Amino acid sequence: MVVQERLEITAPGRGTVEITDQVQRIVTSSGIKTGLCHVFIHHTSASLMLCENADPAVRHDLETYLSRLVPDGDPLFTHRQEGADDMAAHVRTVLTHSELNLPVTDGRCALGTWQGVYVWEHRFSGQRRRVTVTVYGEQA
Amino acid sequence: MVVQERLEITAPGRGTVEITDQVQRIVTSSGIKTGLCHVFIHHTSASLMLCENADPAVRHDLETYLSRLVPDGDPLFTHRQEGADDMAAHVRTVLTHSELNLPVTDGRCALGTWQGVYVWEHRFSGQRRRVTVTVYGEQA
Amino acid sequence: MVVQERLEITAPGRGTVEITDQVQRIVTSSGIKTGLCHVFIHHTSASLMLCENADPAVRHDLETYLSRLVPDGDPLFTHRQEGADDMAAHVRTVLTHSELNLPVTDGRCALGTWQGVYVWEHRFSGQRRRVTVTVYGEQA
Repeated sequence: MVVQERLEITAPGRGTVEITDQVQRIVTSSGIKTGLCHVFIHHTSASLMLCENADPAVRHDLETYLSRLVPDGDPLFTHRQEGADDMAAHVRTVLTHSELNLPVTDGRCALGTWQGVYVWEHRFSGQRRRVTVTVYGEQA
Repeated sequence: MVVQERLEITAPGRGTVEITDQVQRIVTSSGIKTGLCHVFIHHTSASLMLCENADPAVRHDLETYLSRLVPDGDPLFTHRQEGADDMAAHVRTVLTHSELNLPVTDGRCALGTWQGVYVWEHRFSGQRRRVTVTVYGEQA
Repeated sequence: MVVQERLEITAPGRGTVEITDQVQRIVTSSGIKTGLCHVFIHHTSASLMLCENADPAVRHDLETYLSRLVPDGDPLFTHRQEGADDMAAHVRTVLTHSELNLPVTDGRCALGTWQGVYVWEHRFSGQRRRVTVTVYGEQA
């Protein structure tokens, strides 16, 4: 059995937006008890992240770390039509994840105690991002 | 329903080879309308990438960025039997992706407007690379 | 058809633990012949890796490379309650992989000749890590 739903996520600018609850709701309403839940983001300047969801300092530090690793406006970059964050956003996306597959157990995404699902916006400006969630498995 | 096919990709050397059309053809011929399409590369010196497919400068910049991040012949590396690109290729593979899962909607991989699927060869010399595509879901 | 099993992996400290055989045993006992095998780690300080499994120098070099890329105790990090490896472990996890999907062909994970599946512990101290393996596909 396969259930597929689309989410529209509003990201106010660079940073993370938690979508764990929205994903869990889709799993619950699918009625699937054992299987997998796949989350996919249809963009090349934003990614998905499984991350510690207790201390917000973890996401803050990931952001500053990634900004140092992939400098905005790096003179190396030739693709820079849309500004200093344009090519940096593509690199950040490739170094992180465009899709996540999560086990479904007893009708829920079986995340670890500290795992949350996040959209990670890499552009400076606010964006609307399209995410597709596909739940598949068995209802019994 | 599950359909599995094998692709043989010829990479002329370090760089990207687009395989979006080949993957879409397998999805179409599978007859699966809703589900997922999994792409897997059976190697540890080449990877897969979902990337902006409009401006080739994006892939050029990703290549120069990764070459700076993972220097060929880095004195840190002890595994160097096959040359300066040997260990660098393994690191590049681990920092990127060996497999991608793409949503199938209305009988097609539902990629974003700018998303293409690429094999990313990390060795300097030409290689034949094995890729397995598995499409699964429902025909209805 | 879906079969799901849980593994408990003991990691003696930072470094890799191969789990290829344990994953293959679950695939074999599932009876599934064609499909996929999904491996998921329920933690944010340890990850999964598909890696060259012939020369141990490859994993050694990956470890020293990642230690240089993500310095323990980096002054950038504000989240440091559990020591110098705390935030570094979260960054290392996000830059690598929390889950892997492997094609199942003829009743086995169709890994490349040199591909092994590893848990990559990023904390200094020994840990017990929870991994869920989900095999899905067709028995025929």
